[in-house]
Amino acid sequence: MDWRALAKQKRESTIAQIPKEWVLPTIPPPAEQRDISGVWMHQYLTPEEIEITSSDAEKVVELASAGRWKAVDIASAFCHRAAIAHQVLNCLHEFFPQQALEAARALDEHLTSTGKPKGVLHGLPVSLKDQFHVKGVETTMGYLGWIGTFEGKKGTGKERVHESLMVKDLKDLGAVLYCKTAVPSTLMSGETVNNIIDYCWNSANRNLSSGGSSGGEGALIGAGGSVVGFGTDIGGSIRIPAAFNGLYGLRPSSGRLPYEGMANSMDGQNSILSVVGPLSSTPGGLKLVTKALLGMQPWSYDPMVVELPWREEVGEQVSRRATEDGGLTFAIFWDDGEIRPYPSVRRALEKVKAEIEKKGHQVIEWSPPKSIGAISDIAMGVFMSDGGVDAYNAFALAHEEPAPQLAPIVPTTPRTQATASEVAAMNVTIRELRKELMDYWNSTVSLTKNGRPIDAIISPVSPYPAARREMYTHYAYTSWVNALDWTTVVIPVLRTDKAVDVVDPSFTPRSEAEKLEFENYDLDMYDGAKVGVQLVGRRLQEEKMIEIAAQVSRWVKSASE
Amino acid sequence: MDWRALAKQKRESTIAQIPKEWVLPTIPPPAEQRDISGVWMHQYLTPEEIEITSSDAEKVVELASAGRWKAVDIASAFCHRAAIAHQVLNCLHEFFPQQALEAARALDEHLTSTGKPKGVLHGLPVSLKDQFHVKGVETTMGYLGWIGTFEGKKGTGKERVHESLMVKDLKDLGAVLYCKTAVPSTLMSGETVNNIIDYCWNSANRNLSSGGSSGGEGALIGAGGSVVGFGTDIGGSIRIPAAFNGLYGLRPSSGRLPYEGMANSMDGQNSILSVVGPLSSTPGGLKLVTKALLGMQPWSYDPMVVELPWREEVGEQVSRRATEDGGLTFAIFWDDGEIRPYPSVRRALEKVKAEIEKKGHQVIEWSPPKSIGAISDIAMGVFMSDGGVDAYNAFALAHEEPAPQLAPIVPTTPRTQATASEVAAMNVTIRELRKELMDYWNSTVSLTKNGRPIDAIISPVSPYPAARREMYTHYAYTSWVNALDWTTVVIPVLRTDKAVDVVDPSFTPRSEAEKLEFENYDLDMYDGAKVGVQLVGRRLQEEKMIEIAAQVSRWVKSASE
Repeated sequence: MDWRALAKQKRESTIAQIPKEWVLPTIPPPAEQRDISGVWMHQYLTPEEIEITSSDAEKVVELASAGRWKAVDIASAFCHRAAIAHQVLNCLHEFFPQQALEAARALDEHLTSTGKPKGVLHGLPVSLKDQFHVKGVETTMGYLGWIGTFEGKKGTGKERVHESLMVKDLKDLGAVLYCKTAVPSTLMSGETVNNIIDYCWNSANRNLSSGGSSGGEGALIGAGGSVVGFGTDIGGSIRIPAAFNGLYGLRPSSGRLPYEGMANSMDGQNSILSVVGPLSSTPGGLKLVTKALLGMQPWSYDPMVVELPWREEVGEQVSRRATEDGGLTFAIFWDDGEIRPYPSVRRALEKVKAEIEKKGHQVIEWSPPKSIGAISDIAMGVFMSDGGVDAYNAFALAHEEPAPQLAPIVPTTPRTQATASEVAAMNVTIRELRKELMDYWNSTVSLTKNGRPIDAIISPVSPYPAARREMYTHYAYTSWVNALDWTTVVIPVLRTDKAVDVVDPSFTPRSEAEKLEFENYDLDMYDGAKVGVQLVGRRLQEEKMIEIAAQVSRWVKSASE
Repeated sequence: MDWRALAKQKRESTIAQIPKEWVLPTIPPPAEQRDISGVWMHQYLTPEEIEITSSDAEKVVELASAGRWKAVDIASAFCHRAAIAHQVLNCLHEFFPQQALEAARALDEHLTSTGKPKGVLHGLPVSLKDQFHVKGVETTMGYLGWIGTFEGKKGTGKERVHESLMVKDLKDLGAVLYCKTAVPSTLMSGETVNNIIDYCWNSANRNLSSGGSSGGEGALIGAGGSVVGFGTDIGGSIRIPAAFNGLYGLRPSSGRLPYEGMANSMDGQNSILSVVGPLSSTPGGLKLVTKALLGMQPWSYDPMVVELPWREEVGEQVSRRATEDGGLTFAIFWDDGEIRPYPSVRRALEKVKAEIEKKGHQVIEWSPPKSIGAISDIAMGVFMSDGGVDAYNAFALAHEEPAPQLAPIVPTTPRTQATASEVAAMNVTIRELRKELMDYWNSTVSLTKNGRPIDAIISPVSPYPAARREMYTHYAYTSWVNALDWTTVVIPVLRTDKAVDVVDPSFTPRSEAEKLEFENYDLDMYDGAKVGVQLVGRRLQEEKMIEIAAQVSRWVKSASE
């Protein structure tokens, strides 16, 4: 079959899972309905569905566990809203409401018969990036050549049977799985594009990208079709969609959450590891699922996970410092020296800084001994080390052509690979980099008023408040974090406002690249785009960074109200 | 300079550091004095030196901290005994008693002036494998081409100035550094041989190897010239010398103790990481230094270290299980299916099993789904991945020739290297292996009486109770552990006894290789050789395995008394 026909067939098979009564009669063009992250979708939902899908993850679990909401109603409401989101945004690869409703009914029976919830995520619908294997469901990761196979291999006996470890854990915890969300083929893009769904659009501004590579998650949660889901991040893939869709997103350090049994690109490349982590509409959602998963002791089942249970006391220390005990200290940087952030991104950074300072906490400048660009370049070198052969092979399976954004990642013939010695040399470079930046972090002790090193770094996520199609070209603002393996949480801050976020007339581009990026800044098109920033912490500081995100977010929000 | 002349010059420069009064008039041949691990050396020592060097690490620290022993007397006693050990065994690369005595005097002054010990290792002499960089001292790692350089590079400004992180920590903790111990060039050998010291002999049986690659540590501590020191282990390099010299040795999991700033082979190869860990005359010595180092929060200074403080409660749980709470459970294996252990090694395993069972604990058979040989082969593939170029380059620096044992590791021209994709494929194989064995470990829950998975595996360390020169050829018994990154402690068990440890007349070799190994078993030559076994635990279980080693060792010893 021609790859285009195969793509169409797969695309239609997902749509076919949507019950007829949920199919939209017409889909308004972006010019008519730019933003579907708010109340627009309510017209298609019952009051009960609106109430359920407007709740946060903690409330859903609380009411489901108490039996006040039926799991099956919760599942149905989120399935409905997800189905609408997909029709407008192309955010799903797989949709399995029947399986979800069955699982939800079983949870309701469990609660009725035992009087107890199944687990700490009882009744919570959780969306998953299409790298997770779920029993009964296909995994394509956007590759046509993966259709009907297990990760591109035929006849393994694992097709639609094998399940990722975290999927099993989520089910055991009482979560309800109902969809797998769109990714760009290769996973190495800030735009979610592939030959199956074409393009996944932003939930808050349909002129723009949902981000990537966990772009389907970002769009879906942004549109209210999920309250919490899981993505992965090797260069920004959780943080970019979180920021672009006005969400919270946790990029844990590697070894904290279980990746075991998931599909991946360049599997086994372990110089800079892809990590799995949650996106959510609230910081509480991040905490709920992260704590729940660590409660399953994943280090007993995933050899890559470190035995580090959830440390509540680490978060409590942040809460104390938020109001006493010398306060919190942040370092901020505004610009990576290459591409300055667009005005609304700059305004978001300024707002976060101002609100932190208003609460009496200190914000110093982050001036590391290596530039963000230089740090990011080290990560890029790792991602290129296989000469593109992994991406090349995956595209070759179905002889499909990459979208223009992916063409630079998918070579027409693979380039020369790095040798084992060259890989080792990269690993030494990464280790030395991490040591150098760790030492710099420690050295901030001499710059803070409380005599402690800083608690977190405030950083842009991207130069753009979401990118325009085919225009995501600059990754340094996220990939520097991956090179260091630092724990990071994205928080939403504001929306782009065309009345405010104009480029300063005195702005002079420092380079041809920066000139081009600012030429792409079409203010009308960007109006309403959401903007987030990232709060970067040390390695394996998930408890701390989630709590810092919650605190900072509270300060920023209370200022907006 | 010809490399042989350079080697001689370096060898003599180390000997020149020994004060004249400590130079032995004659060195008895092995036929005359086979064992120098016991009282033989006392003839050269004062009663005070004998008392000090016969004490364990905890006692040394206790008396030094209380001011009952002067740090300078302790340092002097160990320097003296180390000097004698080196003259007989060739166990040192670097010897710096003047620096040690100075440091010790400063500690004494500190105690006098402040009334407090410097740290929890106050006054403890600690020996270091010649991969540690110590200020003022050279690091050759056995390579002639490293003399006068920093790791083979000239004019870096780091020569004799740069210090490994752990060295700084040890000094801050009050330890006294006085020597760096011998290693085989390349670090990839179970025998300690290089062109500088020639061959490092076994402390208990001078016909045999001290083991490797931390062979200098093994010999030195075995001879009483140190009570605790640090080695490294990527294929058995801590455990082999520990077992061969009747010592305790901890191979921690990677990421527990700080390797930062040390020299290494194939630096940056991160598929199977070399780890740093202690060897000691007592299990208490292992605990003392491991706990002390973790108290320095090495995760704040070494980016490879996981934030995992010393967990006293993990060890306490072992103590409880040793006497109540369902007991402990072990799994044992006797044979890797390729080379059966020599009779005294087999007897050591039987003894450990019997003493554990006598105390009421269960011992089941360890029959993993993959053979020890197959697991070990995966590790060997990793070690060969650079085509030998690292070893080749290091030998090329001074145009030196490798010893015959090292020739297979040092190619005459480098072989083809693995590509980045092949390295990644190895990493996937390793991850899958770890998952498979983890699952098998978990499955032992159905085989134990107490309904818990086993606590530890009892394994041979080597087929030999120390190897004969040029006859260490079989590494599977140790390298399987490195492939899995499991925490392991070696304990001493017994001595080879030529009256007992005869090969069973019915023994039939299963292969040419096994036949050859047993032809090398010269019972007269082996008489008196010490034998240890290893107790293997899960990843990052240092507290647990040290305590299990202490318990089992107590049971085994009390049976011998």
